[in-house]
Amino acid sequence: MDRFEGFVQRNQERFLSELQGFLHRPSIAAQGLDIEETAEFVAKRLRQAGFESRIIALEGGAPVVFGQIGAGDKTLLIYNHYDVQPPEPLDLWESGPFEAATRDGQVFARGVTDNKGPLMARIQAVEAYQAVFGGLPLKIKFVIEGEEEIGSPNLGHFVAENRELLEDANACLWEGPPKDPAGRPVISLGMKGICYLELSVVGANTDLPSWWGTLISNPAWRLTWALSSLKDQNERITIDGLMDHVIEPNEQEWALLRQMPLEEEQIKKDFGITSFVRGLTGVEANKRHRFEPTCTICGFVSGYTGPGSKTVLPNKATAKVDIRLVPNLTPDLVCGLVRQHLDRRGFTDVEMTPLSQSYPYKSQVDHPWVRRIIEVAREVYGQTPMVGQSPAGGPMYELCGRLGIPGVSAGGVGHSKSNVHAPNENMFVEDYFRAITFTGHLIRALAEI
Amino acid sequence: MDRFEGFVQRNQERFLSELQGFLHRPSIAAQGLDIEETAEFVAKRLRQAGFESRIIALEGGAPVVFGQIGAGDKTLLIYNHYDVQPPEPLDLWESGPFEAATRDGQVFARGVTDNKGPLMARIQAVEAYQAVFGGLPLKIKFVIEGEEEIGSPNLGHFVAENRELLEDANACLWEGPPKDPAGRPVISLGMKGICYLELSVVGANTDLPSWWGTLISNPAWRLTWALSSLKDQNERITIDGLMDHVIEPNEQEWALLRQMPLEEEQIKKDFGITSFVRGLTGVEANKRHRFEPTCTICGFVSGYTGPGSKTVLPNKATAKVDIRLVPNLTPDLVCGLVRQHLDRRGFTDVEMTPLSQSYPYKSQVDHPWVRRIIEVAREVYGQTPMVGQSPAGGPMYELCGRLGIPGVSAGGVGHSKSNVHAPNENMFVEDYFRAITFTGHLIRALAEI
Repeated sequence: MDRFEGFVQRNQERFLSELQGFLHRPSIAAQGLDIEETAEFVAKRLRQAGFESRIIALEGGAPVVFGQIGAGDKTLLIYNHYDVQPPEPLDLWESGPFEAATRDGQVFARGVTDNKGPLMARIQAVEAYQAVFGGLPLKIKFVIEGEEEIGSPNLGHFVAENRELLEDANACLWEGPPKDPAGRPVISLGMKGICYLELSVVGANTDLPSWWGTLISNPAWRLTWALSSLKDQNERITIDGLMDHVIEPNEQEWALLRQMPLEEEQIKKDFGITSFVRGLTGVEANKRHRFEPTCTICGFVSGYTGPGSKTVLPNKATAKVDIRLVPNLTPDLVCGLVRQHLDRRGFTDVEMTPLSQSYPYKSQVDHPWVRRIIEVAREVYGQTPMVGQSPAGGPMYELCGRLGIPGVSAGGVGHSKSNVHAPNENMFVEDYFRAITFTGHLIRALAEI
Repeated sequence: MDRFEGFVQRNQERFLSELQGFLHRPSIAAQGLDIEETAEFVAKRLRQAGFESRIIALEGGAPVVFGQIGAGDKTLLIYNHYDVQPPEPLDLWESGPFEAATRDGQVFARGVTDNKGPLMARIQAVEAYQAVFGGLPLKIKFVIEGEEEIGSPNLGHFVAENRELLEDANACLWEGPPKDPAGRPVISLGMKGICYLELSVVGANTDLPSWWGTLISNPAWRLTWALSSLKDQNERITIDGLMDHVIEPNEQEWALLRQMPLEEEQIKKDFGITSFVRGLTGVEANKRHRFEPTCTICGFVSGYTGPGSKTVLPNKATAKVDIRLVPNLTPDLVCGLVRQHLDRRGFTDVEMTPLSQSYPYKSQVDHPWVRRIIEVAREVYGQTPMVGQSPAGGPMYELCGRLGIPGVSAGGVGHSKSNVHAPNENMFVEDYFRAITFTGHLIRALAEI
């Protein structure tokens, strides 16, 4: 693979410049900005690398860029996305979010880590591999969507409608996670799903003077009581029946949990806290983080929220509740459990609107492709990668779950201070070229399985 | 008293025009608008009616207009205020809030009912009484403040510093309540106090992605749990020890409760509700409304409250809680009980800031001046007035409680659709002149006690 690395070395300037061109594009899914144009840009770059590529329109959604190349009886599917988060608040950026300025060996741009850096690195790796070795030893298929940052509402439809394009895949290389706070490479073998609910209660036909609190039902109280019944002060989810579906990690997963510690002190320092909930620490904290569902109030609003006092009995209260799902918990199941739980306690006045939903997904730890990807990471990064379930969410189920293949998130370009979704998103240039190297090694290693 | 009524009759046009001149003044306490000028206006009108009057400055507050007139061994204190609520939202007014337009026998203006109408009516009644009878048979003292609509923060100081002006008062005629929904005159013999608290919890040093809900304490949850401990789903206040201080109505008060029904069906229709809390009705509802404290969430805000979903773990949550106080509950006592209650349950992270506070006050039902005022109302209005504790709040304690005299709110100009504190505040002109008549009769009747 020295020749591969030599080629990358000689092309560093061009590769980086291409990435910057990609980063200049403000392809913000939430605002529908520059989406079609960026899809074209990506499809064209795939063709330049030798891919057959096409843009697959989705009704009411951003198009998917599909690309395929190579031959053989093995197929590696690669998932990335070309859309980015909005860059706001703009005044906190030290250089323009789409300027892609470089400073001190870092590139600063919205999307550089999430996820344009990993995507461009992988395309360039395929180009380099072919330039050096004359062809690919396996098939590679890219699925590059444009709605990841708004919850991938159409990825499942895409997979359902284009199954024949995808069903020969053996495994899927997912957009890569950043390194952990200790600088170790991270490999995620699954993601939590989500059931995001809006709960609201309406009372009288208008706000009233608060002295009516004697007799008139207060939506803010009703919602407070309803919420309190979902999770208790000991941080236990108390939605009837929900925790019965949650399974313990298996032996291999426990082993991985022990090998992949949380950087607890660093996390506490970064977030300005002194302890985790229930005083959890060590493997118990890590297990809760990766293998248990959450139930989080993301927002609550009712009545007067300005400065000082206003003696009002509000006529509406609304909360946003995000339940992160682990395997066996599906959005439909959870919606049903919450509704039953509320009704059983007399909270039939609490209206429930599901806002976003996705399934959890967990890849088999001992799948041969998974093991090979982990080995390649160990070689390329020179240290044991941190392997395990991601505590975060993503649409891995829509692609990998529907196809029945493992999804492995590896070979990212970020680090723990990459400011993903925040101002001054950044990556180290060095990590970018390491990601190209990782992909090149992976192509060879997977073909040899 | 026919001559008194004749005089009022002959002066109707002038009296109404004077009131309109008063209503033109935008004396909005919350905005510090036109306050000094309106105090001057009122003091001047008192002098025109024969009062000795002066403006008493209060440090950091709006001045009190004090007026006195008459002679004898009896003194009636009268409380009113010259400030008004802000008129917003302006676009809902059918005529300008300070235009004081008349339509169909009604005057529309901010403050016409609360409380410039009652104030001007009383001054004009004193003028009419003297014009007809040549003098007053008792002393009358006016305390007219300019901060009632912002919670009377300085009225207590005023009373403490000017006790010698006030201590000969036998009773206080308070700003008059509107008629009830059935059109019956209302007399209030007391008001609830208030302990308005802001409760807030701070978590991590920044909002976090919501998947941190596994390990990082969520201020929105902490506050939800803390609030839930203050009042239960059965609408019972559960603050440790608070309800132990609450006393049952005495025999006379029970009798009044039975005589002064809530217009339940009208209230439910007006507010678009089908029942009161706990299905309460009849005298039990009425008793809870007038003799029990409340604990009301007036506002709650945390995290993301816009449209759609945002997966955030908020770093702050704030609620406004208004506890209406009945006799034996003081703001300090209640603050202490809430703090102890929270601490005992581990909610030491809930910060508590008292925002406004006032004492409850209850006048003796069988005080001779109280009985006489009720009799006069029965004569003048031609029907039995609805007598009882007000479910609302006001600074009656600051004046009447500190002086140890009964406070009687009677002789208002409003009706149940007067839109107090709302757009299109209004009164019937007929009710205005009835209020003048009431005050004239009261002067004679109280002197005869």
